[in-house]
Amino acid sequence: MKLTILFGGASFEHEISIVSAITLKEKLTNFDLTFIFCDSDHTFYLIEASKMKAITFSKGEYKKMPTLELSQGSFVQKSMFSKKEYSDVVLNLIHGGDGEDGTISSLLDFYAIKYIGPRTDASVFSYDKVYTKYLCDAIDVKSVRYEILTKSEHKDITLSYPVIVKPARLGSSIGVTIVKEESQMDYALDTAFEFDETVIVEPFLEGVKEYNLAGYKSNGEIKFSIVEEPQKEEFLDFEKKYMDFSRSEQVLKAEIPEELVLKLQTNFKKVYDGLFDGALIRCDFFVHDDEVLLNEINPIPGSMANYLFEDFATALEELSSSLPQKKRIASSYEYIHSISKAKGK
Amino acid sequence: MKLTILFGGASFEHEISIVSAITLKEKLTNFDLTFIFCDSDHTFYLIEASKMKAITFSKGEYKKMPTLELSQGSFVQKSMFSKKEYSDVVLNLIHGGDGEDGTISSLLDFYAIKYIGPRTDASVFSYDKVYTKYLCDAIDVKSVRYEILTKSEHKDITLSYPVIVKPARLGSSIGVTIVKEESQMDYALDTAFEFDETVIVEPFLEGVKEYNLAGYKSNGEIKFSIVEEPQKEEFLDFEKKYMDFSRSEQVLKAEIPEELVLKLQTNFKKVYDGLFDGALIRCDFFVHDDEVLLNEINPIPGSMANYLFEDFATALEELSSSLPQKKRIASSYEYIHSISKAKGK
Repeated sequence: MKLTILFGGASFEHEISIVSAITLKEKLTNFDLTFIFCDSDHTFYLIEASKMKAITFSKGEYKKMPTLELSQGSFVQKSMFSKKEYSDVVLNLIHGGDGEDGTISSLLDFYAIKYIGPRTDASVFSYDKVYTKYLCDAIDVKSVRYEILTKSEHKDITLSYPVIVKPARLGSSIGVTIVKEESQMDYALDTAFEFDETVIVEPFLEGVKEYNLAGYKSNGEIKFSIVEEPQKEEFLDFEKKYMDFSRSEQVLKAEIPEELVLKLQTNFKKVYDGLFDGALIRCDFFVHDDEVLLNEINPIPGSMANYLFEDFATALEELSSSLPQKKRIASSYEYIHSISKAKGK
Repeated sequence: MKLTILFGGASFEHEISIVSAITLKEKLTNFDLTFIFCDSDHTFYLIEASKMKAITFSKGEYKKMPTLELSQGSFVQKSMFSKKEYSDVVLNLIHGGDGEDGTISSLLDFYAIKYIGPRTDASVFSYDKVYTKYLCDAIDVKSVRYEILTKSEHKDITLSYPVIVKPARLGSSIGVTIVKEESQMDYALDTAFEFDETVIVEPFLEGVKEYNLAGYKSNGEIKFSIVEEPQKEEFLDFEKKYMDFSRSEQVLKAEIPEELVLKLQTNFKKVYDGLFDGALIRCDFFVHDDEVLLNEINPIPGSMANYLFEDFATALEELSSSLPQKKRIASSYEYIHSISKAKGK
């Protein structure tokens, strides 16, 4: 299968996207892959598969590679006398800002390029943790209680400690702090406000169980991955985080009762239906006091959560053949013609 | 003041956007205006001010004008040996699809072009009437009760007649029907489903009062327009609708108590704050049984609701100098460098 992997982006998760792309190159050996890198200046580069190494980006070597422009239906490589079009299905693998906030989806929609990834509305609801809470309330999915703090307005929280402090709009646990007592709060807020104007505070639930479930829709039906119980650590240091985004070995199923699997799947379906068509997403759930709570929606999970699928290649193929495409409305000049007629012109 | 008016778009409101743009040309005589037209194929054209007439578009004459491309910081007119950049603040005047659904805002953000108009998240919450309901619930603004119907799932409504049936994602009352009794419901649904997969049904409130209020934020403070009580008609025929989008005379203030004005402003502020920065929006309210209900958010109102402002030119100038701009995150290769170091490479 032909697939274009779009990665990079101007975001705090720029590097993580590179790691994800390299991982997928290693995972999808039977695919005919094209790699398009978006650098932090928002220039697109065509990257040769053999150059898909971290050093190509960290040393700026990608700047010697051909640039691409967006055009209707494709990315285009223009030279003096020729034009080469790249019009395969795009896998949007830009994590965080640009990729997950609705920018890239809108760009691809505008240029009528088919893509795997969340559409613009789905991006808005998953990128901003406050809007994820709005969504949960609306579709009747339980989530952790929360309070919102903004940079401009100082107020005390009413939650009791320990709490977890997160910038509203970042993934990969960047800027996140677990605050055990009030004296640590100012520092945690300063850290979070470095990344966003809005911060979300939640109780830090002791003894909570975590479960991750991924899935996608194909032919009107949701296909679920296995459920994973991720290894829990209070903080991931850089190496562990890097490892987390370069996972490519299938993990073991969590040993949980079938009833809980069904509960997680039911909640996943409520989140996915009518909003995430075209995307392979990972929902991270908590189970606390026998209740399933949605913690986070990852609409472009690290290395596409390939390690949760028994047959990841087939998953991407099925999803590729079920992509929604924004209807392009032809213009009509009915009103203008009628008015002109009425005026006798 | 220099301003670029971006209009057209591939949407059912394509013509209405043209009418809006022509109206603003007539209204903003002291501005140095540039006109950029987006046709339904998503090609941008530079339109000479003297050609800003309905006929230029309805007869396809715009196709003879220079095309523009998006580039970092500007729209660019390229010819064999030269390149002219248009980098003034853009007024996004594309009503409906493209302009109000987050596509154009994302495009302008990606290319770092400053613009007046809703950002991508604000677009998503105002374009889809279902998401507007989610927002209302979350920010504690009252709205009319509703039920959602989808094309794929048939169910009966529990609301009693008369009801109003609307496609979830269209403005300008396209596809909207007032249904007086059950026998008319199928026809109304067929009409609405022509335009969207999702339809919203609300009780048609008899004896409701309607009030429109526009505003924008400048230097951290919301500036309100006057409140208008729009003339009410069950249906607007094409000529009235056309008139509605070409209004340029300031209207009279609604004769309502100051207390009600304050209530409307309070609700407007709840909607605007933290979401609509950079936009001049019009909120359409109902007052029913002494309750203020939000009916609709118009994030790009027809002809920018110029007729509601005593000094519309100043409003645009103030807004232009208070535009948010998406922070561009520089890329860092901290993780990759650390990993390489640890590996001794």
